[in-house]
Order: sequence, then structure tokens, then C-alpha cells
Amino acid sequence: MHKVLSYLGLGSNEGDRERNLRTAIERLGQTPGIRVLRTSALRESTLVGEGPKQDPFLNGVVEIETTQSAAALLAVCKALEAAAGRALPAKKNHPRPLDLDLLLYGDLRIDTRDLVVPHPELLARVFVLEPLLELGLSEELLRERCAIERPCLLTAQSELSAKCSEWLEGGCLVGLVPTMGALHQGHASLFERARRECDRIVATIFVNPLQFGPKEDLAAYPRDLPGDLRICAAAGVDAVFAPSPGEMYGDGFCSTVAVGREAETMEGALRPGHFQGVATVVARLFALARPHRAYFGQKDAQQVAVIRRLVKDLGFPLRLVECPTVREPDGLAMSSRNVYLDAADRRAAGVISLALRTAQEAFRGGERDRDAIVRAAVAVIAAEPRAQLDYLELRSDGDLLPQPAGAVSGGRLVTAVRFGAARVVRLLDNMPLVENSESSQS
Amino acid sequence: MHKVLSYLGLGSNEGDRERNLRTAIERLGQTPGIRVLRTSALRESTLVGEGPKQDPFLNGVVEIETTQSAAALLAVCKALEAAAGRALPAKKNHPRPLDLDLLLYGDLRIDTRDLVVPHPELLARVFVLEPLLELGLSEELLRERCAIERPCLLTAQSELSAKCSEWLEGGCLVGLVPTMGALHQGHASLFERARRECDRIVATIFVNPLQFGPKEDLAAYPRDLPGDLRICAAAGVDAVFAPSPGEMYGDGFCSTVAVGREAETMEGALRPGHFQGVATVVARLFALARPHRAYFGQKDAQQVAVIRRLVKDLGFPLRLVECPTVREPDGLAMSSRNVYLDAADRRAAGVISLALRTAQEAFRGGERDRDAIVRAAVAVIAAEPRAQLDYLELRSDGDLLPQPAGAVSGGRLVTAVRFGAARVVRLLDNMPLVENSESSQS
Repeated sequence: MHKVLSYLGLGSNEGDRERNLRTAIERLGQTPGIRVLRTSALRESTLVGEGPKQDPFLNGVVEIETTQSAAALLAVCKALEAAAGRALPAKKNHPRPLDLDLLLYGDLRIDTRDLVVPHPELLARVFVLEPLLELGLSEELLRERCAIERPCLLTAQSELSAKCSEWLEGGCLVGLVPTMGALHQGHASLFERARRECDRIVATIFVNPLQFGPKEDLAAYPRDLPGDLRICAAAGVDAVFAPSPGEMYGDGFCSTVAVGREAETMEGALRPGHFQGVATVVARLFALARPHRAYFGQKDAQQVAVIRRLVKDLGFPLRLVECPTVREPDGLAMSSRNVYLDAADRRAAGVISLALRTAQEAFRGGERDRDAIVRAAVAVIAAEPRAQLDYLELRSDGDLLPQPAGAVSGGRLVTAVRFGAARVVRLLDNMPLVENSESSQS
Repeated sequence: MHKVLSYLGLGSNEGDRERNLRTAIERLGQTPGIRVLRTSALRESTLVGEGPKQDPFLNGVVEIETTQSAAALLAVCKALEAAAGRALPAKKNHPRPLDLDLLLYGDLRIDTRDLVVPHPELLARVFVLEPLLELGLSEELLRERCAIERPCLLTAQSELSAKCSEWLEGGCLVGLVPTMGALHQGHASLFERARRECDRIVATIFVNPLQFGPKEDLAAYPRDLPGDLRICAAAGVDAVFAPSPGEMYGDGFCSTVAVGREAETMEGALRPGHFQGVATVVARLFALARPHRAYFGQKDAQQVAVIRRLVKDLGFPLRLVECPTVREPDGLAMSSRNVYLDAADRRAAGVISLALRTAQEAFRGGERDRDAIVRAAVAVIAAEPRAQLDYLELRSDGDLLPQPAGAVSGGRLVTAVRFGAARVVRLLDNMPLVENSESSQS
């Protein structure tokens, strides 16, 4: 059986600290498949991070030789912590009689839900680093082993699949956030939501040529990978997949994924092929990454409806998470295309959300007639000479299908408005009709 | 920490058998997170299954209470086996100083690559069952816990996704064999190949309405779920997914997946929409099941080319495995539609493979002209008055794209031939042009 050299970090700041550590080391040595080779000197440290006032820790590192898998070693550590009287589930940064961490396991890198090796804080924690150096490991070696890029940048589709497979098989809940880059606070809000809900999150950055028409702004679409990577890093994104168009659509690519009903009207009617391009790239990303959750902004409401249909119809086993639109102070929905607006158009563009809020107020004031509600919004946009309305419709919420004329009980206002003369900028927005004001921005 | 009552089976037939078992039980009790509660009497048994002549086993069962996970318990068992001097990797059914099996772990069912609990042979092995009864477990309870349907029949898409997720996260290599049922030896050969290569295999049985044209044989297509399940059981299929059309295409289904080039000619030209139906259902099955490998028969060569393109273009991280055509004694390729043939047509249908072999022989005899090779095959079919040729083409092998006229260095002959007057039966076949005779049937 293969023998692996491994290092465990031990700590205690409750009860008889030294006895707790010595007992743990002794019981480690009695465990089948584990041989304790050496133990560092024990030393004191104070709590890292915020927590209640507590005694200093006594820390050390043991070097073991083991035939156990890393996962089995972790289970042994948990059992020893429990045997030492550690309360479970452990409260973060509270005093504990025993804390055991798997620091290194041969030269293996492990990235699973319950175990990351080398330990992510290995270099940052003096009470771990010093004992390892004492046991003869070189700082250079440790720095090399622990050099982990975050987010890790993936450009090949095979890298994306392999990384996500590792996470999936390691029990991680994986979240995917597909974007076209030029990231702003709206995207950041998707990353933050994904970060709260998932064990690992991957952002994709790809300006998808399939979803641009021949006269559209594919070439001009803003691109800023270094800036995007900084935003991803700040939001705690684990991996960024940023492929080239050739990587996505090379080698005789000739397949299409299309959605019917949800993709037929509004953007689908004005931008032929657009949603087919969206459905194709999103299906491809879902197939490659196999995420448990996928995050999209509600700002592109029809896109969300199309993708919801795609997920249902093709059976991708994932949860689609729609996130509220993030707005500028004047109410303009954040969009990568807002940078196209000149100063005057930018000032005028606040009219879109004003129009939607006006219709919303009419609804709250008791107006229930579909066309009257729509007229209230259209009138606001018509009053702004820089704005040209493509459409403004009151659709059912969720699937965004047309509602019959007459009385409505709710729904969602969906609009596209053009600005600019030399260069046309199309801006999308939408707002639900709701009685209370809580979700008026979603 | 949650405490679980678990049962381990112990066996030894090498060295001091009793000492081996007693030592293992003692070391189990010293392991963190494990408390040995009771041990059954030890008893002798002889080897189950084939193996070299060897001494009888001494067996027993221990009851433990543990805070360890089932996977960690398994690791402890492996470490104890190694510590007892068991050679690794262990040879199947060879003498061993110690054999430890996790029989039960609370009432948990586990179905992973390395661990299946309750132990699949629990009821079949007297030397395990008797000690469990001795320790007070009722036979009724054991029968209930171990009642595992095989293959397990899944009808809801959510069941398929959940079962495959369990396998994926349990480290299993999962193979998918999509079929339309009416299973024959051709399908069985796919199952056997998948069984050899994968940890878990799932067959799907679904007569996919999307791939039938309005005048085609959807209603008449043969269906025999009980017979199919028997074939799956005999081939060691782990799960069968047999959904209703409503389960697959209910609730406003309106999405399509389509492949370009590979789907345009031959079957694609004669059966409009056929390959779109195939691509849609296969993409859906891949999305739901997320297999590592998918098995298809070479008999439907263009279908394989279309699916290979689909896998590449959408990025499904799986390996497509093409399996050789299985033939009747007269050379007719096995097909569920062969049952449609009346006796005279059935006798005549051998002409298809005869025609392909004739062209193959011409190639082996030195003929290299594309059209001359095709003419050699067409002449054979033309001589059979019951056969009507839809097409017979010499395509490039693999992607089945057209080859220019003139000299060829190889390729694949692909044909569709109709039989029957009142009821038309279209039969497909294909054969590679190869110099040696080894793969002439593939």
C-alpha cells in the first residue's frame, strides 16, 4: 500500500492544552495506517480573526507516514476532536480543546468541499509555518506547493470540465455565473449571491459572437479581462473561464440550440438569431461545467425566461437563480453597454426606470387596465426627445408571455429603448407590478 | 457528533486466523470514533466463488458504534487489512489474512464506487447472515433493508438525475446506453461493453416521438418493457430510465437541438426533422444523466456521426463509444424493425450485407474508383426484386461526409434499403472499406 508523508497542525486553547495535544498525537499513532514520525516543539499563539476573548493556543505540527487516504485522515482528525470534547458543530473562532488540520498530504493538491490541501492558510499562519520549517521543510518548497492562483484562469474547455468535475466529485456545490465580461456592480451582485450559496463559483467571460446580429456591436463590445479578473478576485470567484471564440466554436462547429415560445417576441423578434445564440452558448457552458446553480441578472428578463425554458426542456439538473437588477443612483439599470452613452444621453437614460416606476405607481394607485398601465409608461418615454421606444409591454411575470387586453392582476413591464444618433445604444429594463414597494427594484 | 450503529464482517483464512480477527477487533476499538459493542461467535466457512485451493475461512461480525463516516470506516478497514499483511492489490478469491466488509451503516443506503451498503451479498452469505441474526437483527429487517431492485426502474427525469448524481459524487464512472427499447442482441452487446468499462450503467428506453416523421411508424414501433427489463437484468444494467412522452416533453416543451453538416444528407434528407429529434433527445439524456461514457451502435452510422458532432459542439464531457454492428447468421444487421419483415422479405434482406461485402471485396481486390465500388454494391441490390434502394454511398469514415469522385483510399459504405409493399420497412446498414478482414463486420 502506498505510503504518504503528511503533516497535521494541532492546536488547543481549552482545558489542559498540552495534555490534549499529547493525547491526540498518541491516539494518532494507534490509528491503523498511521505512523507518527516526528513532532515539532509546541508553541503559543493568539487567536487569528475575531472571536470571544479567550486563552492563547498551544500549537504544533506532527509529521506522519500514512496509508490512509486524505479523506480518511480528515475523518480521523474529526474523530479525535470529538473525543477531546470539542462541541459540534464547532462555533467559528470559539475556544476549543483540540483543533486538527491536514496541512500537507504528499505533494497532492486536493480541492473538495471538506478538504483543501495544501491548507489554504499554511503560509499566512506563523504557528503552522514555523513548526513546518522546524521539521525541515524549506520555505521555498512550501511557497511553491501553496502557490494557488485565485481566481484560477481557465481558457480551454477541457480545463473547465476537469475543474468542475473535481469539485463535483469532491462534494462541492458549484455555481456558474455566465457573463460577457466588462463587469460592473450588477455582475458583482451575482458573484456575491453565488459566493453565499455555493462551495465553489466559476465565472465565465465570453463575448459570444452567436448572439450578435451582423449589424450589431460585437467588435465594439467593451472588453477588459484584467479589470474583470480584479472584480472576480474581490468577489471571491474561484475560477474564471475566458475562452477564445475559436476555443468555443472551432473545428467545424455547426450545432444550434433554440427555444420556441419564450424567444419569439420582443428581443427575439427585433434581433433574429439572438436567443438561439444565447441558448447555444448557455447550453454549452452548462454541458461543460455541470453546475448545481446558475446565476443570471433579472435586467435581461427575457433572456432569463429563455434560459429557464432551456433548463426545463433539456433537463439540466441545476437551479436557475435570478438576481435583482442593480441600478445607478438615477435608476438606470446597470449594463455594460451604458458606457456607449454620451453625456446627454446618459442623463436622459434615467427616463426608462422613471417610466416603469410611473406605470408601477399607476398600478399601485388602483389602475388595472393593461393598456392604460402601458400608456402611463410610454407617455414618460415619449416626453424625452433623446429616447426612442422599441417596445414596452406588460407581460406575465416569469415566462413573459403576452397578457390579454383588459384587467390585469400583476405582471412585468418589459421595455427596450434606443438612444443616440450616430451610434445607437439599445437599453433594456423591466419592473414587476406589485402592490407593496419592497421588490419594486427587482 | 452523530453516533451510528454499524456492522462489520470479518474473515481470515491465512496465518493464525483467530489471532488475526481478534487483533483487528482490538485495533478497531482503539480507533478514534469507533466503539466496539459486541462480537458474534467466530465460525468456519469455505470459499464462495472460484479460486485456488485454500484453507477454510474463520468468520465473524462485530457491532460497533461510530462517529466516523462510512467512507472513513472503509478506510480504517483497508488499513487494518494492510496491517494484517494482506497483499495489495488483493487478488480476487485468493487466501488472505484479513478481510473486512462494511455490512450495514445505520439505515443508510450507499451506492458509490468503493462502497455499497447494505453489502450486496449480505443475504446470500450464510457466514455473514448467521452472525447478524445471532447479534439480534431480525431476518425480516435485513430482507427489507437489502431489498434492492436491479435494474432499478426510473420513470421520472428527476430520479435519473438524482441517481446519476449519487454515482458521480461517489466516484463512479457512469455509462449511458440510450435505446428505443425492443431490445435485441445488438443492444445487449452495448450493455456488455458498458458493463466491462463502467462502474454503473444506465439504459434508457424511450420511443422518441421527435425523431419520427408524421407518416412514420411511431405508433407501430415495437414496445416490450417487461422483455427489455429482463434483457437489462441479464446484462447487469444498474438502472433503466423508461419515461413517458409526457415526462420527456410535457409542460410547454418548445426547445430544439440541431446539428448541421453531419445531419444534412442521406437519412437527414429523406427524414426531415429526424436528426433534430435525435439530437434533442440525446442532448436531454446527456444533460439529465451526465454520463462519463455513452454507447451507440455503429449500425446507425450517421446517427453516431451526428451525436459525435453534438458532443463536440455542446461540450458534453463524455466519451462516445461506438460498438460494432451485430448481425444475424445471414449477415442482416440486427434492428428492432426487422420484426416488421414478412418471411419472404426477411429472406431477401440478407442482400444488404451481401451488397456491402461485395463492394468491400472489390476494394480488397484492388478497385479504388469511388463510383465503381458503389456500382458493385448497387448491382447486387438491383438483382433482388423485393429490395428498393434509397441510397448507397461511399462516405469518409467517421464524419460520413461525401468523398469526391475518383480514387478513394478507404471510407465507409452507407445504405438504406426498403422492403415491403403494403408496409414499407426501411433498413439501414454500413460497412467500412478496409484491407484486412478483421473489422469487416464493424
